[in-house]
Amino acid sequence: MSANKNFQVAILMGSDSDLPVMNQAAEVLTEFEIKYQIRILSAHRVPHKLQEYVKEAEEKGVKVFIAGAGLAAHLPGVIAAFTTRPVIGVPLASGALKGIDSLLAIVQMPSGVPVATVAIDGSKNAALLAIQILASANPILNKKLLTYKKKMEDEVLRKDSELNKS
Amino acid sequence: MSANKNFQVAILMGSDSDLPVMNQAAEVLTEFEIKYQIRILSAHRVPHKLQEYVKEAEEKGVKVFIAGAGLAAHLPGVIAAFTTRPVIGVPLASGALKGIDSLLAIVQMPSGVPVATVAIDGSKNAALLAIQILASANPILNKKLLTYKKKMEDEVLRKDSELNKS
Amino acid sequence: MSANKNFQVAILMGSDSDLPVMNQAAEVLTEFEIKYQIRILSAHRVPHKLQEYVKEAEEKGVKVFIAGAGLAAHLPGVIAAFTTRPVIGVPLASGALKGIDSLLAIVQMPSGVPVATVAIDGSKNAALLAIQILASANPILNKKLLTYKKKMEDEVLRKDSELNKS
Amino acid sequence: MSANKNFQVAILMGSDSDLPVMNQAAEVLTEFEIKYQIRILSAHRVPHKLQEYVKEAEEKGVKVFIAGAGLAAHLPGVIAAFTTRPVIGVPLASGALKGIDSLLAIVQMPSGVPVATVAIDGSKNAALLAIQILASANPILNKKLLTYKKKMEDEVLRKDSELNKS
Amino acid sequence: MSANKNFQVAILMGSDSDLPVMNQAAEVLTEFEIKYQIRILSAHRVPHKLQEYVKEAEEKGVKVFIAGAGLAAHLPGVIAAFTTRPVIGVPLASGALKGIDSLLAIVQMPSGVPVATVAIDGSKNAALLAIQILASANPILNKKLLTYKKKMEDEVLRKDSELNKS
Amino acid sequence: MSANKNFQVAILMGSDSDLPVMNQAAEVLTEFEIKYQIRILSAHRVPHKLQEYVKEAEEKGVKVFIAGAGLAAHLPGVIAAFTTRPVIGVPLASGALKGIDSLLAIVQMPSGVPVATVAIDGSKNAALLAIQILASANPILNKKLLTYKKKMEDEVLRKDSELNKS
Amino acid sequence: MSANKNFQVAILMGSDSDLPVMNQAAEVLTEFEIKYQIRILSAHRVPHKLQEYVKEAEEKGVKVFIAGAGLAAHLPGVIAAFTTRPVIGVPLASGALKGIDSLLAIVQMPSGVPVATVAIDGSKNAALLAIQILASANPILNKKLLTYKKKMEDEVLRKDSELNKS
Amino acid sequence: MSANKNFQVAILMGSDSDLPVMNQAAEVLTEFEIKYQIRILSAHRVPHKLQEYVKEAEEKGVKVFIAGAGLAAHLPGVIAAFTTRPVIGVPLASGALKGIDSLLAIVQMPSGVPVATVAIDGSKNAALLAIQILASANPILNKKLLTYKKKMEDEVLRKDSELNKS
Repeated sequence: MSANKNFQVAILMGSDSDLPVMNQAAEVLTEFEIKYQIRILSAHRVPHKLQEYVKEAEEKGVKVFIAGAGLAAHLPGVIAAFTTRPVIGVPLASGALKGIDSLLAIVQMPSGVPVATVAIDGSKNAALLAIQILASANPILNKKLLTYKKKMEDEVLRKDSELNKS
Repeated sequence: MSANKNFQVAILMGSDSDLPVMNQAAEVLTEFEIKYQIRILSAHRVPHKLQEYVKEAEEKGVKVFIAGAGLAAHLPGVIAAFTTRPVIGVPLASGALKGIDSLLAIVQMPSGVPVATVAIDGSKNAALLAIQILASANPILNKKLLTYKKKMEDEVLRKDSELNKS
Repeated sequence: MSANKNFQVAILMGSDSDLPVMNQAAEVLTEFEIKYQIRILSAHRVPHKLQEYVKEAEEKGVKVFIAGAGLAAHLPGVIAAFTTRPVIGVPLASGALKGIDSLLAIVQMPSGVPVATVAIDGSKNAALLAIQILASANPILNKKLLTYKKKMEDEVLRKDSELNKS
Repeated sequence: MSANKNFQVAILMGSDSDLPVMNQAAEVLTEFEIKYQIRILSAHRVPHKLQEYVKEAEEKGVKVFIAGAGLAAHLPGVIAAFTTRPVIGVPLASGALKGIDSLLAIVQMPSGVPVATVAIDGSKNAALLAIQILASANPILNKKLLTYKKKMEDEVLRKDSELNKS
Repeated sequence: MSANKNFQVAILMGSDSDLPVMNQAAEVLTEFEIKYQIRILSAHRVPHKLQEYVKEAEEKGVKVFIAGAGLAAHLPGVIAAFTTRPVIGVPLASGALKGIDSLLAIVQMPSGVPVATVAIDGSKNAALLAIQILASANPILNKKLLTYKKKMEDEVLRKDSELNKS
Repeated sequence: MSANKNFQVAILMGSDSDLPVMNQAAEVLTEFEIKYQIRILSAHRVPHKLQEYVKEAEEKGVKVFIAGAGLAAHLPGVIAAFTTRPVIGVPLASGALKGIDSLLAIVQMPSGVPVATVAIDGSKNAALLAIQILASANPILNKKLLTYKKKMEDEVLRKDSELNKS
Repeated sequence: MSANKNFQVAILMGSDSDLPVMNQAAEVLTEFEIKYQIRILSAHRVPHKLQEYVKEAEEKGVKVFIAGAGLAAHLPGVIAAFTTRPVIGVPLASGALKGIDSLLAIVQMPSGVPVATVAIDGSKNAALLAIQILASANPILNKKLLTYKKKMEDEVLRKDSELNKS
Repeated sequence: MSANKNFQVAILMGSDSDLPVMNQAAEVLTEFEIKYQIRILSAHRVPHKLQEYVKEAEEKGVKVFIAGAGLAAHLPGVIAAFTTRPVIGVPLASGALKGIDSLLAIVQMPSGVPVATVAIDGSKNAALLAIQILASANPILNKKLLTYKKKMEDEVLRKDSELNKS
């Protein structure tokens, strides 16, 4: 089991309604046997707790933060204000504007405080990006990424050849 | 002089490049003889200082916060997380997207933590809204608002009659 | 019961189809025991009645107007033209453009006539903002806001700890 | 001279900064010898005066209103609330969003109260549309429109043949 | 029965899939006893037939064209190229972009060839605008419009008073 | 000299203000020694002349149409209605909306009448696409395209190596 | 049967989830008896295979590529980098932004490498455009296009006359 | 001097016109004494060279790719297709749409192939993100980041205190 202890990745979201999308990040990390912790900590509703958590997580050795947020999505940027670890932002498609609001609220960070933004609802890619970051200092993990890439490739080729069989 | 001591309104911005727009709010407050304080305190670059300031300002009796921010504009929302005073957000038109990013990043706040948003670069209106808020418990100030409204009216009528004279 | 008499907040909308969203504002006000009046008064269909109402409500002591509108949403701005009380605008997501039209039609007010805009369909936050405005001259109400904020906080922490129990 | 007396078209705008664009409508009307009146009457700053004017203009026999407005452009819609005459709305490109705000705030009118919207800064076309409306009951005016159309045609053909001479 | 013979208004659309929306215009015209003709004539699929029709309709005395179109909506503009009668364009919300494409393709007409644009799917308002145009030379029709406006007003007031009874 | 006689490509635009952008297409065609004709023929101002021209051009053997247009850009779609030859549409960035209007008005064509759309102001690419179309039945022209591609490649490599020399 | 051998058109997509839309292109080609090949070859997941395929297809005589892609749609542009044959791009409406992302990612190609872009989900038109390209050197195919155009025309006229019968 | 040999970061762009923005990334890396290589290698114009380079760079030990691109910005995504190293995408504000096209073309990557996207023209933040990634396995570099963060903080506080002195 890969969650919670000595975790390298922290997955955060502001509300439990974000869980279905953010759990996809957890699943990818599990598949790569990366330890993670998944938390509900809103930048607007529990701001003190959030910054406490960021500091503690960093001290415990977390290497990457993944933060999903919808609407005026401040969570990834607020985390980035409190850490020098890479923060990956996942804009969520909640609300009437379907994520164009959260995308801009996450990606357009001012100079000095970057957030690595992925696609709207792209929590799978957030996990893969976190793994790429960890893998840059971990050749074994990098091999797993190469295997994963190969599997994706095979999957496409399989579907392609099936299409042309039928 | 109306700035700084026993101030009722705090004007905040994340960068000194926002001063030309945010100073317009200060001018309106001065016109109404409302004491204010104007500060540069970024949500991303000095987050600890910012929340300290919000608490202190509240204790000193500030009644309304005005916060201007561009791009992924988090400043108003982060202030709102730390206070129950009304927070007025001014989206700034800095950057390639000309303020549609900051507008969405300010106005689309999640349930429970409102930010009173005005137009892009609308810092004058932010000041007027702050005065309306103060005036709701201050009949003398409300009279000043009525006079201001009357003056605006006269100004329009004067321009209209000039147009039809020429 | 907190509706209608000696009301401090007026909730207006242009059409009864806006009721499901605007009632959420009423519920929050009820929760805070704030007296309010809720009315259907379109800026385009009953303009005379609307301005009459705004004047009367102001004379009866209303402190804040909340106005919800969709499409080319003029209701909040038209109210603001007739009062110096703070007007809170709620853009509604009705129609093909899902509220980006009403957001811009409400928030982009010209200099001199502010409307405090909240998120698309954000009528809950409109109510909270109204309460914050009332609370700026009412320490007891402000305490209720602090309790409300604390409850939100506890709710997030409870959900967070549940997530990590399971 | 075609302005002001027994005018058939009223050209309105909210601010004298809109004059350069709105004067183009006046020039087209002058070219067609249509009597018009041009006025600065803001829906937000002089709302009482505006509705008074609309009623008076209608009684004096005005047949069409042309209203130019920028930002949260309410002027055309507010006029439409007070008259059954056709109202032509001209979205102006003032402000950071270059007119997409005023376009949506004008064109997306709710059922029952139409505004005939033309292009952003399209005040020339607003005048032509007003003339088409007047011409639908005036064969002589319609002939002038046909001549105008023919002149436009000739102008294009002249430029086309010049291009291919050079 | 008010359709087809000696019609004053022509309602056109490019495809029979547009009928459900465009029929709402027909219903409003019927309610006002205005004779109209409703036709399916695409600018792209039957361009010759379309321009033939526009000429014939004009000769038969049609006073206003209403044209509904989705996507790259050219129908209203193409009609406007062939007539001096007012053309009312109705952007339809068909397709992935929900009408923002058809709105821009209709409203942003170049100088010289106006199209009177109404809201996305706003075919009711298109009919009312057509009636306003006809009424500008027809006092009896204008009275009907005043009655219609009054009925709308009463309807809002009825709903408002019901809300406050319950 | 490659213009005008026995031309294979027709370049059209609605206004002489579009010439600076559309001339770039002519230059590319000249570079490839493709005969073309360049014309100013508006879909809205000279609709009869335009369709006459399309028919004549087709009979004279034109193989591809290139049409540039801004705002509610109907020119490419109207040409496509009258021919079975490929029509390449160039959205122009004229007007307040900087070409997002013309892009949507060109690319979102309904089923049955395609327009091959290139980037906003992308008239160079329109010419290259026209050449690719001609080259699909002309191996010598295809070789020229390969040479052109090679030259682009060399240009990038030259700039890259210069950058790393300095 | 018109698929696969000595094919003139290659239809590509990045994922089997794009098949329902892209199959509509295949159906149109079948209707015109054009040989095609349909393949699943992602620019991001099987990049080597994709470029191999483009080269092979070109050598086997393919005349036009049709490529459908959603989100950050790179497939058409990447194909265009490896061939001088015309590449037709079909933006797909997958994802939260409903195709405005894929439209821009396909149509806004830089100078030198055009992609002929059609409407969002416009794979039918992509096929027709491919046929128009092939027909520019094939008079028999061009006749089929004229017949197809005629049939579309008849279909519209039939629906129009049915509407006016009922 | 920190460029070129045994470089850890590769900065790529498609055109030399992107240099002024992308050089800002190089300057930040130089400030942190991170070795980098800066190259002009277009995904569309030199696709073979680009993928060769990605492979070589990876073998030479590059840890992070930074890729800037405008318009239909494919460069970061194409690099990501060929490597498991983190790829940071910088959308550039070139062209009529001011970077909203390149933002969407970079950030909306499909599942399996992430690109870490920063703000439009945010090449400074791209460099900082690259350093954060390198620092996750390098405590000394992390200290430099903390110092950098502290300096930013001091700079804001200095400007703030200057503002309140004056």
